[in-house]
Amino acid sequence: MQNPVTVEVTRGKLVESRHRGLGVVVDGAGRTVFSFGDAEAGIFPRSSCKAMQALPLIESGAADSYGFGNAELAFSCASHSGEDRHVEMAASMLAKAGRDMSALECGSHWSSDQAALIHQARTIDQPNALHNNCSGKHSGFVCACVHSGTPVEGYVGYDHPLQREIRDVMQSLTGAVLSADNCGTDGCSIPTYAVPLKGLAHGFAKMLTGEGLSASRAKASRRLIDACMAEPFYVAGTGRACTKLMELAPGKIFAKTGAEGVFVAALPEQGLAMAVKCEDGTTRAAEAMIFALIARYFEKGGEIETKLLAMANRQMKNWNGVHVGDVRVTDAMFA
Amino acid sequence: MQNPVTVEVTRGKLVESRHRGLGVVVDGAGRTVFSFGDAEAGIFPRSSCKAMQALPLIESGAADSYGFGNAELAFSCASHSGEDRHVEMAASMLAKAGRDMSALECGSHWSSDQAALIHQARTIDQPNALHNNCSGKHSGFVCACVHSGTPVEGYVGYDHPLQREIRDVMQSLTGAVLSADNCGTDGCSIPTYAVPLKGLAHGFAKMLTGEGLSASRAKASRRLIDACMAEPFYVAGTGRACTKLMELAPGKIFAKTGAEGVFVAALPEQGLAMAVKCEDGTTRAAEAMIFALIARYFEKGGEIETKLLAMANRQMKNWNGVHVGDVRVTDAMFA
Repeated sequence: MQNPVTVEVTRGKLVESRHRGLGVVVDGAGRTVFSFGDAEAGIFPRSSCKAMQALPLIESGAADSYGFGNAELAFSCASHSGEDRHVEMAASMLAKAGRDMSALECGSHWSSDQAALIHQARTIDQPNALHNNCSGKHSGFVCACVHSGTPVEGYVGYDHPLQREIRDVMQSLTGAVLSADNCGTDGCSIPTYAVPLKGLAHGFAKMLTGEGLSASRAKASRRLIDACMAEPFYVAGTGRACTKLMELAPGKIFAKTGAEGVFVAALPEQGLAMAVKCEDGTTRAAEAMIFALIARYFEKGGEIETKLLAMANRQMKNWNGVHVGDVRVTDAMFA
Repeated sequence: MQNPVTVEVTRGKLVESRHRGLGVVVDGAGRTVFSFGDAEAGIFPRSSCKAMQALPLIESGAADSYGFGNAELAFSCASHSGEDRHVEMAASMLAKAGRDMSALECGSHWSSDQAALIHQARTIDQPNALHNNCSGKHSGFVCACVHSGTPVEGYVGYDHPLQREIRDVMQSLTGAVLSADNCGTDGCSIPTYAVPLKGLAHGFAKMLTGEGLSASRAKASRRLIDACMAEPFYVAGTGRACTKLMELAPGKIFAKTGAEGVFVAALPEQGLAMAVKCEDGTTRAAEAMIFALIARYFEKGGEIETKLLAMANRQMKNWNGVHVGDVRVTDAMFA
């Protein structure tokens, strides 16, 4: 199945670049409410599924044991920009489990956000593991291991008990079989599994609504989603799409991006979850698609829809501030 | 016409993202030697055509008047990283015409190269117009205007005599009609015109071989191409694709990238020029395509082909240096 061109980038009167994509909206029972492109195609969720990967942190009792509130839980689901408050939060979570950054196995990198990188360059010699965009998730992993007495060392390995547990959680939520066959290694070295896009969306619909989940998992799931919506800065950072989306309509939108053009969202009032993937892996297109897709489920002409559509169809300005073209979603997305 | 998937990005055993593209190789007479995708499609060359835009600098006599050598001429064709030597070169060129950065109308921005940006953050408060990736081209524009007595102010405008001259040059080289209808505004505020990809490649084949050009234009064209090959650092910067390509086989490869997934190359020994465009505008795919396309014209199994294919099909490593997947060109590119 051919995925449609869902996002166009124009310059002057012409289309300069085109992005193809797939997307799906489902309810808690797994019914497809809307889709475009090959919604059953297998895709790597990458960081979009971090809230699923954070469930053991709560279900093990670690989060309560260490007194984690919304900020810590949101940060456990984060792909953050490595701003000072992010780095401090990672260190703080590790300290509560009696560990420090030497326990982290995510590697280190400079921020990919320009403003955050400039600040880092001026204040540190080199980034360490606390600056890694995944340090929140990994700090949560370390805390879960310490609390349950599982060896921390090697926690990123496919056969480590924590990764086995995450695999079980994700199989249960997405309905996909996860094994070495559909496994890749993520940027932060943990396993990532290709799942059908619809399964990813359904997993988030289950987390949102609790449908088909045990009472304890339903509660833990909703606690993570609510924590992210309550502390959007800790999920991404200043000016980032996830943060902006969740700040735009507090409590009404949960959203999380993933590398290579993935974005998921969940809408508590509507009881729906959705996922998009840009075929070519480009963030600008994934963002435009999820903005437009979320907008579909808010009141026509209302403030939220208007803001979302303005983000989905936005002007591009050049270095002199001149409007040179637009990023816009196509009718094919909603045909 | 559907453009084929030319570049795949894998993770584990699976393809995670796919890029479509078009490309064409032509000789000086405009004969298509090889193509894939819709090679007649109109595309914005963006910065890939800077060597064409630099022709008035030589043809006006300005370059000789100011004593410009290979470094200055290469820099006039550059999309540079804003490294210290680039900034110094822009200031030096402007000074030869009695001007300074206040004459530049390109705007300013931080480097898009991570290492260069970190250095900038540590050494300057804010970037100025000299740091703009296009400051070499714009310094050349200013020099051409000053030398010929044309007003400098407004030199980026569609109706300014310099932009009219560039429009004539580009029409003549590409064979395309350039007008307000296919005009957009580039990142640095000058007009950019959509032309058929094949026309862009043919223009570079003419510049390389001199076929169909006046003797003076043929000489000026080859001087620019040779200058870029002689001073590849000034065309882009440390670690950048254009620089690496031209350093890889000195005097045998001219190469220049453009925004939104464009890349052109010219091969003096073969008398061929080529152009590629990634449909979705992604640089990693444009680079893989041009590397593989150039490789096609060097000895099978030889050092140059081997190096080029290793760049076209490369491993991606994560933050821990683990091999997680590959960027690779597909058979469809050469089917």
